[in-house]
Amino acid sequence: MVKRKLETCFAPGLYRPEEHTNSIVVIIDILRASSAICTAFANGAVAILPVADAGEAKEYKSKGYLVAAERDGFVLDFADFGNSPFNFTREKVEGKTIVYSTTNGTGIIDQASSAYRIAVGSFLNLTSLTRWITRQERDVLLFCAGWKNRFNLEDTVCAGAISAKLMESGYFTTICDSTLAAMDLWSLASGDLAAYIEKVAQRTRLRDKKLDDCIGFCLTIDFTDKIPVMKNGFLVDNIL
Amino acid sequence: MVKRKLETCFAPGLYRPEEHTNSIVVIIDILRASSAICTAFANGAVAILPVADAGEAKEYKSKGYLVAAERDGFVLDFADFGNSPFNFTREKVEGKTIVYSTTNGTGIIDQASSAYRIAVGSFLNLTSLTRWITRQERDVLLFCAGWKNRFNLEDTVCAGAISAKLMESGYFTTICDSTLAAMDLWSLASGDLAAYIEKVAQRTRLRDKKLDDCIGFCLTIDFTDKIPVMKNGFLVDNIL
Repeated sequence: MVKRKLETCFAPGLYRPEEHTNSIVVIIDILRASSAICTAFANGAVAILPVADAGEAKEYKSKGYLVAAERDGFVLDFADFGNSPFNFTREKVEGKTIVYSTTNGTGIIDQASSAYRIAVGSFLNLTSLTRWITRQERDVLLFCAGWKNRFNLEDTVCAGAISAKLMESGYFTTICDSTLAAMDLWSLASGDLAAYIEKVAQRTRLRDKKLDDCIGFCLTIDFTDKIPVMKNGFLVDNIL
Repeated sequence: MVKRKLETCFAPGLYRPEEHTNSIVVIIDILRASSAICTAFANGAVAILPVADAGEAKEYKSKGYLVAAERDGFVLDFADFGNSPFNFTREKVEGKTIVYSTTNGTGIIDQASSAYRIAVGSFLNLTSLTRWITRQERDVLLFCAGWKNRFNLEDTVCAGAISAKLMESGYFTTICDSTLAAMDLWSLASGDLAAYIEKVAQRTRLRDKKLDDCIGFCLTIDFTDKIPVMKNGFLVDNIL
């Protein structure tokens, strides 16, 4: 068996599209976009159309779509709701296609568009995602959204959790320092993840805006078995 | 006392020059440029002229300068020697001005040119560097060279060691996730630094090229009290 290559990218400014045209790229933006996307599918959403540009999201609203859109944590005035996972309730999203635009997460989906396959990762779908990945026989890049092209700890720790499971599977090898660092940070954080995440910058940002109520939920491991993947420009549940 | 801000940047693609015009920027490229620079001053070099461009380094050679120049670990054909710290012996460098061009390290010196002050950091000058920094009453950015715009572990762990000392001083505060991650990685590595560095990608790269003989030396804490700083385009020992 040829082992597949596992790599991690910590921020948009470090992404190299030309190296990942044959890879699965996993988008990680746990506070809050990738957690919200997993929650939407858990609650029966049919599809999510990620749009990087807020103006484009507004146009879709005028066409009658359900629109989730935020910048810096705040809901844009034309949108139905923002990107707290708690917004994506069964009542609101079941059977729906949602147009979605966020500060960091949807931008990197756009940036990774030349990848073989884009999937969405979070703690919420950790086990199902990693099981699915090991069956694909592809190199994998874990692409952390970070925050405005800065490294962030919460996405890194999630990348570390995913990496640890992938390495345990025996199907992967890595010589990527980012992956090694992420796994080491996960080893420090995993004993009490909530306490570890207390110190991260985004925790403070969300608390200052009173948007931190969902953080505990976003750290829930295996809340769902959904694996959002991009197909024809839409995120859909992989089982579809 | 107003605490000063401590931040870390993991790679050139994440550097924001406009945020650091009033800061001390510490260049960290421990395998091998920043260790070689500290060694040169320890062995009596008068000044180092960092040049990012190899062609420029070649011109200086034709003018009679002592030139250290490498790309990907290999000495360029026109140069007197490359960037192993073991090249910068007292016999070769004492009383001299050296022109110096490397794969990653000299490029980020160029990139940080708008900073209030550039200093060079490594394990070799850890204590003297951090003592000097605490007296400057300036915000500090630790700028890790990485490797070809990738995150690397060895520079990160060194940034973590510097950060831990600066935070212990009580003069600094940080809300930077990169700094928090670096300190956490340093806490994992510090018990047996040589063993930790065994796993990093650059360790493998240097071993493959048989250039790894200097790694143990580069991990020597407090080999020198020199603090190389940029003044008028030249790195000089700060005491001058």
